[in-house]
Amino acid sequence: MPRGGSATARYEEDPENAWKCGSWFEYLLIVILSTILLVGVLVLTLFWVIFYRGGFAWSENPELQFNLHPVLMVAGFITFSGFSILLYRLCRCLKHIYVKLVHMLFHACAIPCIALGFLSVFDSHNLSEPPKPNFYSLHTWLGFVTMGMFAMQFVVGFFSFLILLCCENRTYNCRATMVPIHASFGLANFMMAIATCVTGLVEKERQMIGGDNGDTAISTRSSEIEHYIMNSLGIVLVAIGIIVSVAVRRSNAPATAKVYVTERI
Amino acid sequence: MPRGGSATARYEEDPENAWKCGSWFEYLLIVILSTILLVGVLVLTLFWVIFYRGGFAWSENPELQFNLHPVLMVAGFITFSGFSILLYRLCRCLKHIYVKLVHMLFHACAIPCIALGFLSVFDSHNLSEPPKPNFYSLHTWLGFVTMGMFAMQFVVGFFSFLILLCCENRTYNCRATMVPIHASFGLANFMMAIATCVTGLVEKERQMIGGDNGDTAISTRSSEIEHYIMNSLGIVLVAIGIIVSVAVRRSNAPATAKVYVTERI
Repeated sequence: MPRGGSATARYEEDPENAWKCGSWFEYLLIVILSTILLVGVLVLTLFWVIFYRGGFAWSENPELQFNLHPVLMVAGFITFSGFSILLYRLCRCLKHIYVKLVHMLFHACAIPCIALGFLSVFDSHNLSEPPKPNFYSLHTWLGFVTMGMFAMQFVVGFFSFLILLCCENRTYNCRATMVPIHASFGLANFMMAIATCVTGLVEKERQMIGGDNGDTAISTRSSEIEHYIMNSLGIVLVAIGIIVSVAVRRSNAPATAKVYVTERI
Repeated sequence: MPRGGSATARYEEDPENAWKCGSWFEYLLIVILSTILLVGVLVLTLFWVIFYRGGFAWSENPELQFNLHPVLMVAGFITFSGFSILLYRLCRCLKHIYVKLVHMLFHACAIPCIALGFLSVFDSHNLSEPPKPNFYSLHTWLGFVTMGMFAMQFVVGFFSFLILLCCENRTYNCRATMVPIHASFGLANFMMAIATCVTGLVEKERQMIGGDNGDTAISTRSSEIEHYIMNSLGIVLVAIGIIVSVAVRRSNAPATAKVYVTERI
């Protein structure tokens, strides 16, 4: 939107950029599919953990305490963050400041999930016999960078797009510069979160079936079903990555419309 | 670019959209960093395979034949495809048809790498004693989808943006519709390729250190160094994913410029 642009300049309301039937169909398809996937991944993780990994506990049982880790991390990094990103891009009915607040709120909901999920794996590593080393595998390295990036994005986003609003006109240029950076790193952070989840899943699965010749070490029918559940979880995670990157890249306007490249600040 | 737009309408040549110093700095930073990472990941994979996995062979030695798989897949799916995507977005000096041809050529170079990489792992699975099952793990599922998507993208891209050019004006609308779809799915495919590489790496690493309690099963100093090399490889792969997604999202024009949303067809 240009400097000082009023509500009437918004391209959603410009008849030249009005949506055709196909755009609405695509929009609804993305909204419905992403909702199913984002809720589905959490339900599938819960199902896996409760029915195949023995449910939850806190520090009295380090093995069950570990089970909180995948559920909370998927809830925080994938479900809440995914909805937050999609809502920001796809919400067409609310005033922009409310969209921002909802975006912030969803990310804020992710924080306790991530903090508890991190604590639970830390505890379960330290309390198990013998204690397992922390920050050793690729999954843990990726997870550490993802958490750091998430915290930075939250703090920078909060200050740039909410606090700096107190001085709307003076901070316009600064906020305009920050928008594409925040958006690009936000998407990158989400992709990193997915890579972290997928590597964690593969690590866990390999640890479970164990042995040097892992591919053939299927012991019981139950573990085979669990293997397929975990693979499906991985596929759903990657599908979420694809649908979010497609939804974020696709403009709200039809492809031939003439609009301002700056995203909404 | 608008319908029938001549070279003078291209926003790179529009003084209103001229780049500032900061944009040039960002552009050069992305070009240099991505070149280092895309070449670096291939060199690191070669280094790992040659010095820690015993080098290469064909079907006479299934274990060494497997080693071709990571090298060829990284060359095809990451290095060639990554350069192809970045060249298309970042090349500012060539005529657009040449940029398209180079984009196609790089992807075409990836095809034999991917085909041989696929054959080598298939052979090494079938020829090993006992034969290992194919398409069992998450890595193989992801790889299969990635390969299918890559083939589809190549065929669709080749017909839509090169063959349909023979009838330039009549096919404009069709091509304009295809551009964002091809771009979105291309990026998604690249992200999937990275997820596949990373899962493959984690699987291989877990298989190598083996055992149920994989985290603590470090046997020798050499295997510990190999572990860190493999982790670094994973980190470089994710860094490539981030830099490519950032480079593709960032417009060639400064954030406040008024440009056409349609990408170049």
